[in-house]
Amino acid sequence: MKKYFLTDEWKVIEDGFDKSYNRVTESIMSLGNGHMGLRGNFVEKYSGDSLAGTYLAGIYYPDKTVVGWWKNGYPEYFAKIANSANFIGIDLKIDGVTIDLAEVKFRDFKRVLNMKEATLSKSLVVELPDNEIKIEAVRFLDQVNKELALIKYKLTPLKKSVQVELTPYLNGNVKNEDANYGEFFWQGIACTAKDSLDVLTMKTKKSEFEVSTAMQYQLNKKAQVTPKQAENYLARKISLTAAKGEEIILTKYIAVCTSRDYPQSEVPEQAEAKVKAAVKQGYTKLFAEHKQAWDLIWQESDIKISGDPAAQQGIRFNIFQLNQTYTGHDPRLNIGPKGFTGEKYGGLTYWDTEAYCLPFYLATHAEKVARNLLLYRYHHLEKAKENAAKLGLKGALYPMVTINGEECHNEWEITFEEIHRNGAIAHAIKDYVDYTGDKEYLVKYGLPVLIEISRFWADRAHFNQYKDKYMILGVTGPNEYENNVNNNWYTNRIAVWTLNYTLTTLKNLKNNNSKHYQKLLTELTINPQELELWSEIAEKMYYPYLKEYSIYAQQDGYLDKEQKTTADLKQADLPLHRNWSWDKILRSPFIKQADVMQGIYYFKSDFNQADIARHYDFYEPRTVHESSLSPCIYSILAAELGREDKAYQLYLRTARLDLDNYNHDTDDGLHITSMAGTWLAIVRGFAGYEVKAGLPTFRPFLPQAWTDFEFKLNFRGRRIKVKVDSTQSHFDLEAGDPLKIKVYQHQYELSTAENLSIKNK
Amino acid sequence: MKKYFLTDEWKVIEDGFDKSYNRVTESIMSLGNGHMGLRGNFVEKYSGDSLAGTYLAGIYYPDKTVVGWWKNGYPEYFAKIANSANFIGIDLKIDGVTIDLAEVKFRDFKRVLNMKEATLSKSLVVELPDNEIKIEAVRFLDQVNKELALIKYKLTPLKKSVQVELTPYLNGNVKNEDANYGEFFWQGIACTAKDSLDVLTMKTKKSEFEVSTAMQYQLNKKAQVTPKQAENYLARKISLTAAKGEEIILTKYIAVCTSRDYPQSEVPEQAEAKVKAAVKQGYTKLFAEHKQAWDLIWQESDIKISGDPAAQQGIRFNIFQLNQTYTGHDPRLNIGPKGFTGEKYGGLTYWDTEAYCLPFYLATHAEKVARNLLLYRYHHLEKAKENAAKLGLKGALYPMVTINGEECHNEWEITFEEIHRNGAIAHAIKDYVDYTGDKEYLVKYGLPVLIEISRFWADRAHFNQYKDKYMILGVTGPNEYENNVNNNWYTNRIAVWTLNYTLTTLKNLKNNNSKHYQKLLTELTINPQELELWSEIAEKMYYPYLKEYSIYAQQDGYLDKEQKTTADLKQADLPLHRNWSWDKILRSPFIKQADVMQGIYYFKSDFNQADIARHYDFYEPRTVHESSLSPCIYSILAAELGREDKAYQLYLRTARLDLDNYNHDTDDGLHITSMAGTWLAIVRGFAGYEVKAGLPTFRPFLPQAWTDFEFKLNFRGRRIKVKVDSTQSHFDLEAGDPLKIKVYQHQYELSTAENLSIKNK
Repeated sequence: MKKYFLTDEWKVIEDGFDKSYNRVTESIMSLGNGHMGLRGNFVEKYSGDSLAGTYLAGIYYPDKTVVGWWKNGYPEYFAKIANSANFIGIDLKIDGVTIDLAEVKFRDFKRVLNMKEATLSKSLVVELPDNEIKIEAVRFLDQVNKELALIKYKLTPLKKSVQVELTPYLNGNVKNEDANYGEFFWQGIACTAKDSLDVLTMKTKKSEFEVSTAMQYQLNKKAQVTPKQAENYLARKISLTAAKGEEIILTKYIAVCTSRDYPQSEVPEQAEAKVKAAVKQGYTKLFAEHKQAWDLIWQESDIKISGDPAAQQGIRFNIFQLNQTYTGHDPRLNIGPKGFTGEKYGGLTYWDTEAYCLPFYLATHAEKVARNLLLYRYHHLEKAKENAAKLGLKGALYPMVTINGEECHNEWEITFEEIHRNGAIAHAIKDYVDYTGDKEYLVKYGLPVLIEISRFWADRAHFNQYKDKYMILGVTGPNEYENNVNNNWYTNRIAVWTLNYTLTTLKNLKNNNSKHYQKLLTELTINPQELELWSEIAEKMYYPYLKEYSIYAQQDGYLDKEQKTTADLKQADLPLHRNWSWDKILRSPFIKQADVMQGIYYFKSDFNQADIARHYDFYEPRTVHESSLSPCIYSILAAELGREDKAYQLYLRTARLDLDNYNHDTDDGLHITSMAGTWLAIVRGFAGYEVKAGLPTFRPFLPQAWTDFEFKLNFRGRRIKVKVDSTQSHFDLEAGDPLKIKVYQHQYELSTAENLSIKNK
Repeated sequence: MKKYFLTDEWKVIEDGFDKSYNRVTESIMSLGNGHMGLRGNFVEKYSGDSLAGTYLAGIYYPDKTVVGWWKNGYPEYFAKIANSANFIGIDLKIDGVTIDLAEVKFRDFKRVLNMKEATLSKSLVVELPDNEIKIEAVRFLDQVNKELALIKYKLTPLKKSVQVELTPYLNGNVKNEDANYGEFFWQGIACTAKDSLDVLTMKTKKSEFEVSTAMQYQLNKKAQVTPKQAENYLARKISLTAAKGEEIILTKYIAVCTSRDYPQSEVPEQAEAKVKAAVKQGYTKLFAEHKQAWDLIWQESDIKISGDPAAQQGIRFNIFQLNQTYTGHDPRLNIGPKGFTGEKYGGLTYWDTEAYCLPFYLATHAEKVARNLLLYRYHHLEKAKENAAKLGLKGALYPMVTINGEECHNEWEITFEEIHRNGAIAHAIKDYVDYTGDKEYLVKYGLPVLIEISRFWADRAHFNQYKDKYMILGVTGPNEYENNVNNNWYTNRIAVWTLNYTLTTLKNLKNNNSKHYQKLLTELTINPQELELWSEIAEKMYYPYLKEYSIYAQQDGYLDKEQKTTADLKQADLPLHRNWSWDKILRSPFIKQADVMQGIYYFKSDFNQADIARHYDFYEPRTVHESSLSPCIYSILAAELGREDKAYQLYLRTARLDLDNYNHDTDDGLHITSMAGTWLAIVRGFAGYEVKAGLPTFRPFLPQAWTDFEFKLNFRGRRIKVKVDSTQSHFDLEAGDPLKIKVYQHQYELSTAENLSIKNK
C-alpha cells in the first residue's frame, strides 16, 4: 500500500497536496486538548471538499431522531456533538484577490502534525502571475490553559511588495454535516466587538449550552484595521503593504468558554478575560508551557519502537490521539469513537471506553483519570435505571450510545438487545480496583453500580423449566453480525461474572465491615432472597456448547449455520458490510469482532492453554475483524498462546489503521477508541502485561520486525520502564517504592536501586 | 362499547358531529371506485382537525427513505400514494362571511355513507345570528365512468334571503401528511380556464405522473361568475341572492385523467372531454348508471345476515370498502392495506392481497379480477429477480411492500427476512387454478413465477451437515413479534410446498405436453440437476418440533421462552406493541398473528382434526391477535374443529374493526385488506366453503346470535346462493350448468332446476 504521509517517528507529514485526499488529511491532522478539538482544516478560504470541524467536549445538540419504523422504547433524540463556531479562520487577500487554496496555484506545500509538541503547521508558496507569497502557519490547542487556541500566521512576498488584507474572524454560522434534517443547531446570542477584542456568543438550541468564543490578535507591523460584523460573525479586516521579503506575522489568540464550566451569565466575560490574559502572556510563553505539558504526557505514555519507523509513527499517532481526546480532568466527559475528529457516531460514548480505553489510561496516567472514566458511569446510574425501566426491567441498563446518560441509539437490535455493554461497565470496576487497589472506590461508587447491573441481569434472565437452567434470550453480542440471538455465551458469561463479583464484594464487605454492610443493604433495599436468586442464576446459567468441537458456542444454533471460514471468502466480498446484504451477513457464520474470544480475553484465568487454543482455532478463522476493536483481542490471545507471528500480524491490522486509511473511512474521522487496541496489543500482547493478584506480570516477546520496544507503566505510585529487545526484557523502576513483579511466572523484586533483565523465552 | 355511528343495514350514519372524532369519520366515510378515492372530507372550509385526502390509484411519489442506520440492500425510496389535487372543495360565503364548519354553529347534522348506492351525503342547518341555512350535499365517484366524480350541493335560506357566494375550486397545493421530509410531491404544470371549464394539470416530481383534473358546474339559477386563479389553483366565484326558502343547487362535475392511462400530452384534453361529456349526460343519468353498477356488485358479493343488524352493517361495510378499493379493471393496480382511505403504509401492496383478499375476489367477481391480481405479480417478476439478486440470491424475491414491483420497506428484519411472502404469492397461483380450473394460466403465467420462487427457496436454504437436513435461517415469519429466527416452520413448510407444487406442475406438463415442457425447460434454463436439488430439499427439509406437545414449533428455540399465555397478561399490557419495548415483545412467547396456524390453514388437508386441535390449543392461547389479519384464520380453524362459539368470538374481533374503531387507529385510514378476513370467517369459516378437487364443499353452521345468513358464490360460470338458517343450509344454483357440490362430505348434484336443502349438523 502506498503511504500518503511521510514516515517520521514524531511527525505526520503531508508533502504536497492531494485535494481528493483532503478529508482524510483533515482527520489525521486533528488537534485536541480534552476541552476542544479541531480537524486539520486550513485557516484560509478553501472551496474544495472539506469537513470544517470545531468540536467542544460535552457541547451537544439533541438532534431529532430518524427511524425506519418507530418502536416503543426508542429514544426521542440522538445527541450530536455540535460543530461549533469556526475560530481558526483568517481570510487572505493579496492585491485585492481572495486566496482560495482550492483554486490558487502553489508549490512546496507541507502540512505537518507534530506529535511531540502537539502542533499543526503548514507551509506553502503561493504562485501568483507576477509574485510568490510564502505562507507559514502553526497552531496549537493549549494543553495547560485548555480554553485557549493559538495560531501564528506568517506571510512573506518573495518577488515584490503587495497589498495584503488579512481578516481573522469568528464565524458561528456552522452546521453539522451529520444533522438528520439539516437543522442549524445554534442560535446566535451576541456579537460583541470592543477595541481589539471580539466575543461571539452562541447557544445550542434545546440543550441550551452557551459558548463564547473570544478573539484578539497581534501583528508585527502597523496596519489599518476595520472591524466587520454580520449575523453570528465577527472579524477584523487588517490592511497593509508588505515589502518584498518582509515577514508579516499575525498571531490569533482564541478563548472558548462554555456554560458547562461557568454560570451562563459569566461565559462571555470569562472568554474575554481568558483571551486578554493569553495575549498578555504571549505566544512564546504559552507555547513553552504547552510543550512542557506534552513532554510530561509523552514521558508517561510513550511507546518506543526501534527498527521500524512506520510502527513507531503508528503507535505514537495512536497514543497522541488518545491523549488529545481525553485528559481525565472532567468526570462529565468521556471518549467518543471519533473523538474530536469527525461527526460520525455523534461524538458519543460506547462500551469501547471500558473494554478498550480504560487499561491504557490506567497504565499511563494518574489513577484519577481512570477513576473519572468510571465516575462518568456512576453519575449516570439513575438514568441507567430509567433506561431499564423504559424496557420494563429492573436495575440499570447503561445506554449503548450516550452523551449525558440517556440512550441515543435507535436500532432495536442494538439499543434494546446489545446489553452485554452492562457487563463491560461492571468489569471496568474490577479492572480499576485490581489495578489500583482502591477498595474504597469499590464500596462507595462501585457497589451501587454493580448491584443495579446485577438486578438487571437477574430480571433479564428467566428460568427455563424444560432445561432446569437460566437463559438470556433476544440479545446481540459483541459480534454485531448476529442480531437477536438466544444465549449469547459472552453475554451469559459476563452476566454471571457480574452477579458473582457483586456477591463476593458484598460478602467481603460483610466479613470486613458488617456494620457498613448492613447499612448498605438498607440503603440499596437489598434483601437476602434477592442475593439468593443471583446466586442461583449464577449457578444455573445455561451456556451453549458445541460437543463436536468441545468449545462454547457463540449462541444457540451457531452450528446450524453453513460452516465456512474466511478462506472461503473472495476479495470482492470484503468488507462484508459493504458487499453483502444484512440478512446474508446474519445467517453466515462470519464474525465481525471477538465475541466468544472477548469473553475468553476477559476471563482468561478460567481457561487453560488448550481451552484457549481450541476456541481460538475455531473462532479466529470465522472472524472477519470488520470492527477495528477486534484484531487487538485476537492478537493478545495469540500472544498468550505463543503464536508470535499471528499476534504481530493481527496487531498490524490496526497499527496504522487511520494513517494508512486502511478501511477507506478515515475521512469520517479517526478511530479513536480502537487506537487503545494497538496499545493493548503491544503492552498486553507482546509484553504480556497484566495485573494478577495485585502483581504486575509479564510474558514478553519481541516481534521479529523490531529491534526493541519500550514503554512505561504507572502502577500504584510507581513508574516502571519496560524494554524488550531481541534477547532480554529489562524492567526499570523509575519512581516509587520497591515492588514485586512476575515475569514468565517467576516473581522478582524491583526497586529503583537495581534494574532487572530477564532472558526472553 | 358505545357505537358512534347509527346502526343501519345499508348505511353508516353520523348523527350529530363530534369534532374530536372527525378523522375517524373521514376514514369511515371514504369513497372509492378503483381509479380514485376520497376521504369523507367536507366540501366547505373546515379549519378543525382533518386529513384531507384525495388519492389516485397508481399515482405515487418515491419519497426519500428514512432509516436509523443504513444497511446494504435497503431501497432508496418508499413510494407514497400522492395526496392529489382537492377537487371536492366548494367555499361558501353567506352575506360576505366564510362558512367554516369548525367554527360556525349548526344543528341537525348528518353525514351518511350509503353503501347500496355508494354515495356520501351530508345535511345540516347552519345557525346564523339572524338566519338559518339548510345545506345538503351528496357526492359519488362514478363506478362506470371511473374518471368522474360528481357533487350535488344544495343550499336553502330558511328565515330570510341572503347573499350567497359559492366558489367551487380545484386546489393542487396538497401535501401528504406522511412525507418523510415534508416535501411537496407535485409540480404545477398548467392552470387552464376556458369558458366555464377549468383544467388543473399537475405532475408528481421524480415519478412524473401527470394528472389533469377538470371541473365544470351547473347552477339552477343565473348568477354572476368570476373566474379565480392562483398557483396550482382554479376556481369560479359564483355570486347570487337566494330568497327565503329558495333551493340553490350547484352541481360540480369533475374528471380526473392521468398519464397512466393516456399519453402525457393528451391528459389535459382527455380530462376536458370527459368532464364535458359528463355535463352533457347530466347528474341524474350518470348517477342512475352508477347505482346500477353497484346493484350488480351487491348482487354478486353481498352477505345478508338476519337477526343482527350490527353484524349486517359490519360485513356490508367491509364488502363495500373492498369493492371500492379494487375493481380488477387494471392489472397494474393492487390493494393497499389502507386502500384510498389514508396515507399510512404508503398505499402499497403487501402479501395481504394473496393471503386474504384473493379468495374474496375469486368467489364474488368475474375470474379476470382475481387473474389481474395474479398478473400484477407476474408483471413484476423481473423486478423480483433483481430484488433477490440485490440480496445475493438466485430466483425471485417479491417485495414486502411495493407499488411498482420494487421493494419499499426498509427494516432489515422485514425487508430481507420476512420472505414467507414469496410463499403466499406462489400459493395464490394454486388457489386461483384450483378455483377456476384455468390450467392455461398455470402454464403460461404461473410457472415462470413458481420456478423463480423455487429457485429463491433453493438458494436461501442450505444443507446442514450435522443434522443431514436443509434449513432456512434468519427469517421473520408471519408472526412479526419474532425477528431473525431460524427455521420458522411456516416458512420452511411453504417453501417446500412451493418446490413440490412447481415440480408437480412441471411433471404434469411433461406427461401431458412434453413438447411444451421441453420448450419451457429451454426458455427458463432449467436443468435436471436443479429439479433434483429442489426435490432433495423438499424431502430433507428440517421442521422444528416440540416433542413435549407433539406439535411443530414456531421456530427453533420457541420452547426456550418463558411459557405464558394471554391469560397471564394484564389489560394494561395490551396492545403489547404500544406498551412493551420491542425486545420484551421479541423474547416473550406471545404471537402477533397466526404463524404455525397460518400454515395449518393453508395445508389443512395434511392434518387430521386431532393434529389441528393440538396445534390450536397450544398456539391460540399464546396469540394476541395484534394484527387484524389474525382472528379470521383462527376463526376458520375453530369452525373446522366444530368450536362454533370460539369461531364466532374470533370473527367478532374484526367484524366491525373500523366501524367501532376497535384498535383506536381508524383515524389513519381503514384496514382494507383485513376486511377480507371477516368475509373469509363467514364464508370459509361459518359456511365451511372450500374448493376441494374441483368441487365446492361446505360445512355450514349458524352462529347462535343470528337468524340466518346468505351469500353468493361465483364458481366456474355458476352463481350459487347459499343460505344457512338455524336448521338447514340451502343451496340454490342461480346461474350456470349443473354441478356437483359436497356438504358435510356428502356429494350432491346442484342445478338451476332444483334447490338443495341439507339439515345442519
